[in-house]
Amino acid sequence: MKITVLTLFKEQFESFLNTSIIKRILDKGLAEVRIVDIRDYSFDKHRHVDDTPYGGGAGMLMRVDVLSKAIRQNRNDDTYVLLTSPKAKPYTQKDAYRLLEKEDLMIVCGHYEGVDARIDDYIDENISIGDYILTGGEIPAMAVMDSIMRLIDEGISPDSLKEESFNNGLLEYPQYTRPVVYEGKEVPFVLTNGNHEEIRKYNLKMSLRDTYLYRRDLLEKKELNEEEEKLLREVIDELE
Amino acid sequence: MKITVLTLFKEQFESFLNTSIIKRILDKGLAEVRIVDIRDYSFDKHRHVDDTPYGGGAGMLMRVDVLSKAIRQNRNDDTYVLLTSPKAKPYTQKDAYRLLEKEDLMIVCGHYEGVDARIDDYIDENISIGDYILTGGEIPAMAVMDSIMRLIDEGISPDSLKEESFNNGLLEYPQYTRPVVYEGKEVPFVLTNGNHEEIRKYNLKMSLRDTYLYRRDLLEKKELNEEEEKLLREVIDELE
Repeated sequence: MKITVLTLFKEQFESFLNTSIIKRILDKGLAEVRIVDIRDYSFDKHRHVDDTPYGGGAGMLMRVDVLSKAIRQNRNDDTYVLLTSPKAKPYTQKDAYRLLEKEDLMIVCGHYEGVDARIDDYIDENISIGDYILTGGEIPAMAVMDSIMRLIDEGISPDSLKEESFNNGLLEYPQYTRPVVYEGKEVPFVLTNGNHEEIRKYNLKMSLRDTYLYRRDLLEKKELNEEEEKLLREVIDELE
Repeated sequence: MKITVLTLFKEQFESFLNTSIIKRILDKGLAEVRIVDIRDYSFDKHRHVDDTPYGGGAGMLMRVDVLSKAIRQNRNDDTYVLLTSPKAKPYTQKDAYRLLEKEDLMIVCGHYEGVDARIDDYIDENISIGDYILTGGEIPAMAVMDSIMRLIDEGISPDSLKEESFNNGLLEYPQYTRPVVYEGKEVPFVLTNGNHEEIRKYNLKMSLRDTYLYRRDLLEKKELNEEEEKLLREVIDELE
């Protein structure tokens, strides 16, 4: 997979690309990331990329001519172009799986004060990571890349993917490691006694409990099977 | 405002803290950020911080003893402690305003494979930036910091805050800058004719239109005044 990022703050990606799992994926050649400075496509020697908005208002807007030139000169026919922007439903894990299918992705980092609206003609999709305002599209671009790149085959073992939150519509069950007692709190006994069926059932119940406590909205969207229904009723009884 | 971040990947914050608006805020002394390496609080010379989960399962969990020690030694009585975790409703702009009130914030970056569940006793709040899975809590920590720090007083002019998306429950209206015609697309005439009342009304209508097109869920949550109701009806009529 090839990912091209267009940004005004190229240096903001340095640490990200040199850290841990992402670096491992790049080193293995499982993905290729190119960071492009939008200023290189400016039309004047002062490398201007923005200008004041028509109709007044605070702040500067990124120019459509500069940005569309940068897009055009860094894409080919198959490139799928994303723009970080508030004009989209918040990104979810489903979008990560969907975008994983693209061979060639471009992420254009929006400017915090805005981009000339005519840019819509040059992109395939607006992408937003959530309903909060950031100083630029760089953190969203990293979030999207991170969520996709970690799915790329050998980057993460299939085992760790299966048990993650959101994959089955529930929060992950609580997990525990050594020490078995810490400041008066013990690891639940069932997890230490080696009975796999009991552990499975306990973990499913705890997963339902955490989802009920912290993300009831997810529970409302999920169809529960008979065992899950029964365990959820137990959870609710015990909490009351 | 003081922000302390606990992480296994200290270096991932370098570029973020040295870029643009965030750097300006730090240089002005409007906020103070300290990045702490969790490994410094390990109990053994190999600096281990994680261990295998009880009850089986893939991956390694961050130990509660190491992490709680790191929290305790870097907080004081007034510190408000956040843990990046899927166990929370997605973060919104309202949370940014709420956390802005805290004088002393700590963000603990979760490990992608999980943290011993007993950590809950040592934190004040779980925080999630959205329903997608990332390799670690570092990008969420940056997103939260970015959203809060940009609100800090002189960091951003009050003028630019007022007109932003989400602040009035609608998407921002489309904006345009030079050139006035680009590849056949013109800036809407009304924005260039200098009639402020017409511009205000046009922008409000376009804001309603974009919200209707891209984030109808936001519109359903908002109470419209009489003018907005009327303009929205016009938008819907024109789109049909």
